[in-house]
Amino acid sequence: MSSQFQPRDPYFKVRVSRSFDEQTVMQLIGASLGVVEPGHVEIELPYRQDLTQQDDFIHAGISSTIMDSACGYAAYTLMPALARVLTIEFKINLLAPAAGEHFRAIGRVRKPGRSIFVAESELHASLDGEDKLVATMVGTLMAVYPQ
Amino acid sequence: MSSQFQPRDPYFKVRVSRSFDEQTVMQLIGASLGVVEPGHVEIELPYRQDLTQQDDFIHAGISSTIMDSACGYAAYTLMPALARVLTIEFKINLLAPAAGEHFRAIGRVRKPGRSIFVAESELHASLDGEDKLVATMVGTLMAVYPQ
Amino acid sequence: MSSQFQPRDPYFKVRVSRSFDEQTVMQLIGASLGVVEPGHVEIELPYRQDLTQQDDFIHAGISSTIMDSACGYAAYTLMPALARVLTIEFKINLLAPAAGEHFRAIGRVRKPGRSIFVAESELHASLDGEDKLVATMVGTLMAVYPQ
Amino acid sequence: MSSQFQPRDPYFKVRVSRSFDEQTVMQLIGASLGVVEPGHVEIELPYRQDLTQQDDFIHAGISSTIMDSACGYAAYTLMPALARVLTIEFKINLLAPAAGEHFRAIGRVRKPGRSIFVAESELHASLDGEDKLVATMVGTLMAVYPQ
Repeated sequence: MSSQFQPRDPYFKVRVSRSFDEQTVMQLIGASLGVVEPGHVEIELPYRQDLTQQDDFIHAGISSTIMDSACGYAAYTLMPALARVLTIEFKINLLAPAAGEHFRAIGRVRKPGRSIFVAESELHASLDGEDKLVATMVGTLMAVYPQ
Repeated sequence: MSSQFQPRDPYFKVRVSRSFDEQTVMQLIGASLGVVEPGHVEIELPYRQDLTQQDDFIHAGISSTIMDSACGYAAYTLMPALARVLTIEFKINLLAPAAGEHFRAIGRVRKPGRSIFVAESELHASLDGEDKLVATMVGTLMAVYPQ
Repeated sequence: MSSQFQPRDPYFKVRVSRSFDEQTVMQLIGASLGVVEPGHVEIELPYRQDLTQQDDFIHAGISSTIMDSACGYAAYTLMPALARVLTIEFKINLLAPAAGEHFRAIGRVRKPGRSIFVAESELHASLDGEDKLVATMVGTLMAVYPQ
Repeated sequence: MSSQFQPRDPYFKVRVSRSFDEQTVMQLIGASLGVVEPGHVEIELPYRQDLTQQDDFIHAGISSTIMDSACGYAAYTLMPALARVLTIEFKINLLAPAAGEHFRAIGRVRKPGRSIFVAESELHASLDGEDKLVATMVGTLMAVYPQ
């Protein structure tokens, strides 16, 4: 599905990886970068007790953290080398409690543009070897070019 | 503005405070509960370097964490004692970079219901004594009653 | 994809068709019901000059009209016979101008529930024999049962 | 509230009025332009039986039509004379059934920008002399400049 997109910068993987390393919040919550392909980025997050809301599920804001970055970096893979990526807005639907041992945010570009990108992400939870879709996000990203 | 709402349970402040203490993610990020009034809850977050994205601004997911809880607890103040609160969905608009020394998420109920509540929150940043609106959220919450 | 869902009421097609006929706005704009399968409903709309915004494209509100109903009826196919369907909220992303001779809103249930359903729809435009995705929607629907 | 904004083009009222007249869908549904001030536009819609969904309430897509245009024109009042306005996305929350004799969509700019604007609108219904808030929208608009 993501193979429909051609990156404009051959070093997109390096750029995504460097930028991810600068997102200090990812180290705080224990998230790591997974798949990085043109228009498609995944972020991995093991469950931790200190990431939860009152019912011991992962807090929706933490789910948003990795889903927003998955959307943003999916868009970033398709941007020229000099562009920066900015989230304008996103919407998340919480389909089921974020219960599980491991979480994966899968971000994909839905519509690339010169300045405006639309991307979507899914949050999958692994629990006892089962995979479950627990949230979906749609976001609007902007490519910002140096003046 | 929030005085238009009457709580159904006189102990709503205790309930919000207890539930907030169970949100372990709040301790991880250093957030604390502020104002708790009927239909109106605020959450405070000092800036920390380990909460940021690649440009040293607070990550949108961390902004979402305190804004979602501000919406959720604003709704929770108006729910009966036995209800639990669940976020169904939210949308955030990032109006400006989340730059500042201190952040405050101000959540207010827009429309209470028996099961469905709509709430909104604003994220304000303080920088050099100036207050700036940096994000807005609208969310849909559900009251869940014991079967 | 929609075959994953089992309707709870064997007469779901009749219920959808009757309800659609009661949506008088559909006659006003010239929309008609297409595919009706469990968790999957399509609505067809030929282009008309009197449905447009200032650039002669279909107005986003008219796109929303058929996309919201496609989501709502997709959810309705999976509800028990006595339920009514209500839209709580939706979000639409306009990916490209709604230019074309014919439009199709394809609604699919993403997550069914007892009371809360999440559904998505796509708006496709046909122009000179080409099919183009011009908008996406995600919506939250509620099943309302007689008291 | 809207007086906080300064229009960049003194003829913004003429521009809004002309553009509104080109939205043919407004004549179809019977909507008319009301207040036009910097960052603030209202659109009026009398109830009509042929604008409804299955329960005789105004269809959410028709509500969206006037709310989206109220947001869009509120943004447009603040754009330079040569800009065009484009809706990128919007989200609507349906707080109550759109029942009433008359509807008013009140759009206000929340955050202006060079290219990206965030605007909000409220839909008020008049029924037996009472005013009721029945829906809220937040939308992202883009100013498009001639190349």
